[in-house]
Amino acid sequence: MRLEAIRYSPGSLQILDQLQLPEHCHYETLSSVQQAREAIRAMKVRGAPAIALVGCLSLAVELQAGAGGPGLAALVAFVRDQLSLLVAARPTAVNMARAARDLTHMAAREAELEGATEETVRERVIRFAEDMLEKDLKDNRSIGDLGARHLLEQTNPRGGKVTVLTHCNTGALATAGYGTALGVIRSLHEMGRLEHTFCTETRPYNQGARLTAFELVYEKIPATLITDSMAAAAMVHQGVSAVVVGADRVVANGDTANKIGTYQLAIVAKHHGIPFYVAAPSSSCDLRLETGKEIVIEERPSQELTDLNGVRIAAQGIRVWNPAFDVTPHELITGGIITELGVFAPEELRAALSATIFSEGQTLDSPQM
Amino acid sequence: MRLEAIRYSPGSLQILDQLQLPEHCHYETLSSVQQAREAIRAMKVRGAPAIALVGCLSLAVELQAGAGGPGLAALVAFVRDQLSLLVAARPTAVNMARAARDLTHMAAREAELEGATEETVRERVIRFAEDMLEKDLKDNRSIGDLGARHLLEQTNPRGGKVTVLTHCNTGALATAGYGTALGVIRSLHEMGRLEHTFCTETRPYNQGARLTAFELVYEKIPATLITDSMAAAAMVHQGVSAVVVGADRVVANGDTANKIGTYQLAIVAKHHGIPFYVAAPSSSCDLRLETGKEIVIEERPSQELTDLNGVRIAAQGIRVWNPAFDVTPHELITGGIITELGVFAPEELRAALSATIFSEGQTLDSPQM
Repeated sequence: MRLEAIRYSPGSLQILDQLQLPEHCHYETLSSVQQAREAIRAMKVRGAPAIALVGCLSLAVELQAGAGGPGLAALVAFVRDQLSLLVAARPTAVNMARAARDLTHMAAREAELEGATEETVRERVIRFAEDMLEKDLKDNRSIGDLGARHLLEQTNPRGGKVTVLTHCNTGALATAGYGTALGVIRSLHEMGRLEHTFCTETRPYNQGARLTAFELVYEKIPATLITDSMAAAAMVHQGVSAVVVGADRVVANGDTANKIGTYQLAIVAKHHGIPFYVAAPSSSCDLRLETGKEIVIEERPSQELTDLNGVRIAAQGIRVWNPAFDVTPHELITGGIITELGVFAPEELRAALSATIFSEGQTLDSPQM
Repeated sequence: MRLEAIRYSPGSLQILDQLQLPEHCHYETLSSVQQAREAIRAMKVRGAPAIALVGCLSLAVELQAGAGGPGLAALVAFVRDQLSLLVAARPTAVNMARAARDLTHMAAREAELEGATEETVRERVIRFAEDMLEKDLKDNRSIGDLGARHLLEQTNPRGGKVTVLTHCNTGALATAGYGTALGVIRSLHEMGRLEHTFCTETRPYNQGARLTAFELVYEKIPATLITDSMAAAAMVHQGVSAVVVGADRVVANGDTANKIGTYQLAIVAKHHGIPFYVAAPSSSCDLRLETGKEIVIEERPSQELTDLNGVRIAAQGIRVWNPAFDVTPHELITGGIITELGVFAPEELRAALSATIFSEGQTLDSPQM
């Protein structure tokens, strides 16, 4: 059975509580934006694409139950305000901010159409969220297939199998399904071209040990868990062909914010001459920012380092620095940036996505996605 | 009060059980080599110098209580056999192997002296172990002071303070006291030249979070704990002046085996142009091996990654790779190798130590250390 992080049907949203994985597969019902915000903030759901999906779908569920209004203006304001609250829950992930912007604009435009009613706008907003879910799944399959083909061409053009190292969780649990970086690994496995996967445990939150390892075992993909500090040694001793990671935000010059530790991995990959790939939907690309210096990095509570399952694991009284993300400069992304639209060198990204956004812009007033 | 990992008086040996730190400061009595082996294997005591000290002192305690013999030949054989058992407990650390070799030879030579008795040999072996303890403490102070002065000259010759990043535990808890890499940090602090310390948590065994952080808090040295994956980000954002680590074994060309993750740190330090130092007593240097390729790397149980305090933290069924050490090639040791005899570039090490070993060789038949 396919692993589902998000279960949605009109009026109903459930998420797999990732804090309880890998021990318990517990689905939690989210009936409101407020509940979704809490789940996002507590990291019951995580991963930039999944955060945006759960945020927008929680709004859809509230709207389905009649929230917002009465009246067109009140509904549009309600949509805007609820989305702002969702954006603030995890500020580094761009997908939620982008979805909020697009959805807010769309609702405002719909409300100005001739014959618009509270009901037509409500339905359009709900459909927008539902379409996001469908598009994410489709895009991930494209990312997986495009990335796998590019990686094989770069590292093993004459056939044979490859070994991929990945960081954090970018799989079905971080997206609508399939995954981004883990989607590339899934595609390689389906193609019979995957020798082995190394997943880092990804301190301090252990998304690799808990979630990626869970997905890999679940789908019987050959895989080995290592600590974050073993990546360089694995490159020397375990024949790593490429590194593929996800992204929370890719900016115009290709600089990429992703889970803390990504930058370090990119440096050691470069040192070993191993291609380093970022896999992310174009919705994680933010061309409004020129360079990674402009990205705001979220700092998380020190307890994530010092405590585990409520037990203190570090010395009392020690200070902690806990940035959730780091920024990998584009020159270290030597393999490419894998999107649903193609695999681009960092310096090609802006042009490639601008073309697409421009063509989307042609239909800016029609339903998107 | 000074932190003591080893409490010894003639006939009595206690170690601070590091598995119970930082929650409990529990001292365990070791009355035999067998108990010392178990404590070393279980990592109740760790750090290459401390392992050798506890090993040899446990033999001293057994000898004090009358073990070995009767007769000169039986005593010498007993010493040799007990030491072999100790060497096998943690194979990567060279200090125990070196101490075992020296002590075995010394006992054999003493037994051949005119007028040698079981009692004179017994006393010499005990004194050898006691002298090791004293010398280790003295050497660590030298390492700390020499390293601090070199580091300041390299990074901050005009005065001002420095920020040092370290890995694993190389402090009072890993040695007879004071420490090697942490000794350099202690010396900088005593000199009023330490701005800040960053210590990595050092997965999978968390020696940094449990032990180094404990020592730093205990001695009120300004310090911040980070995950192993944050080192590169700390170099960008936190003004790290130098990296100083310990060593389990330094070989003739300067290649260094140390706690897993050291190699990765050396790569990222080089990428940022930050000097990378190895601090180790000359007893951790093994000129019999030419390059790091010859070092046997111990692999440890997978439970160290997948379980914490008896609780499973990784997905069931995932494979694990758990090398305890990695090898940092000498060209990445850009700051130098800090020993009690001086700070050497890797390519100078062989000549510097050979000279010393040669001069020691002159008195090969007199008591060694």
